[in-house]
Amino acid sequence: MRKVDPEKHEERRQQILQAAARCFARDGFRGASISEICAEAGMSAGHLYHYFPNKEAIVSAMTEGGLARAAEHFEQMMQSPDPIRAFIAESTKTKRGLIKESLVFDVLAEAGRNTELADILRRHTLALRALLADFLRKAQVQGRIDAELDAEMTAAILMAIIDGARTMLIRDPKLGKGDSADYLELLVTRFLASQDSGQSV
Amino acid sequence: MRKVDPEKHEERRQQILQAAARCFARDGFRGASISEICAEAGMSAGHLYHYFPNKEAIVSAMTEGGLARAAEHFEQMMQSPDPIRAFIAESTKTKRGLIKESLVFDVLAEAGRNTELADILRRHTLALRALLADFLRKAQVQGRIDAELDAEMTAAILMAIIDGARTMLIRDPKLGKGDSADYLELLVTRFLASQDSGQSV
Repeated sequence: MRKVDPEKHEERRQQILQAAARCFARDGFRGASISEICAEAGMSAGHLYHYFPNKEAIVSAMTEGGLARAAEHFEQMMQSPDPIRAFIAESTKTKRGLIKESLVFDVLAEAGRNTELADILRRHTLALRALLADFLRKAQVQGRIDAELDAEMTAAILMAIIDGARTMLIRDPKLGKGDSADYLELLVTRFLASQDSGQSV
Repeated sequence: MRKVDPEKHEERRQQILQAAARCFARDGFRGASISEICAEAGMSAGHLYHYFPNKEAIVSAMTEGGLARAAEHFEQMMQSPDPIRAFIAESTKTKRGLIKESLVFDVLAEAGRNTELADILRRHTLALRALLADFLRKAQVQGRIDAELDAEMTAAILMAIIDGARTMLIRDPKLGKGDSADYLELLVTRFLASQDSGQSV
């Protein structure tokens, strides 16, 4: 029996994830076939199935990578002098990483007709929301944002805003990116602001 | 030469749009083929091509229908005692009409790889944004919302929030719909509120 070299194994895994990301970007989640991903990764189907049983498992592995990066970013943002401003700047930035914007919308569209993908999306959403809610609770303790807001619901709303920021520039690529970032900042700042003047808004 | 009966023509056109909407919901924009749409509509390809040259033309016709309905809704909302509250209620409601949520995300995903679809999406976005900006300008004149906000950019942000509200319930179907609607209302209300106290938020 051959020994598995963990480093080599991880390298192959990443090679497949990167090849799949290119195929999904080109042909969509549904359009990209396992055989196309194999060709892109330069390996046989038998070899690829050793790493991932199907396309859903590939997307799931991508979301895990995204979550690990998000957790790092939240740690860094909490260290910054103005965590909320850092969060807004981070959220409106073009994403690096394997999950391209088109894949996000592919998965959102497919979730209604693919229960396995819907489960992966829900688990990822809940994990990311928990990180964000924790971040918001710390900001509430520091008096940076409205302490009356429910952290979980507020996190869900902020994730909706991040999704909306993505659709905004796809819907109208000519929209000034600077202007739209300024308005997104205004939106989030007004939403989160402490209501200490007591006025009803 | 046969005379074209306009009523019959429109009836057939609607029949195709409804069949296509079912096919897109089932198999996605890319997955649904013209021959599948023909079978669903119970007509030959030659007959269907007489109405629509391709799937993009079908989506374009669907967006025109959506825009006509949106224009009607804006008219109605302006008549209501609190147009902004009426807008929020309308925006968080499940949509009727031919464009299902999954198609919105299909089109957002495909826009990056299909320039014809990207153009249709951009034209639709600009037309809808113009209606919404006009609605906001009237609300500014009436002193209902912050007069300092740029109506076009604010309309773009509100459309992003509507997209985000759609993704929120796909990402987590167990999220309380009532709670999320309350928080969306809080978000929009705080964003649009007149900043008449002069405090910086």
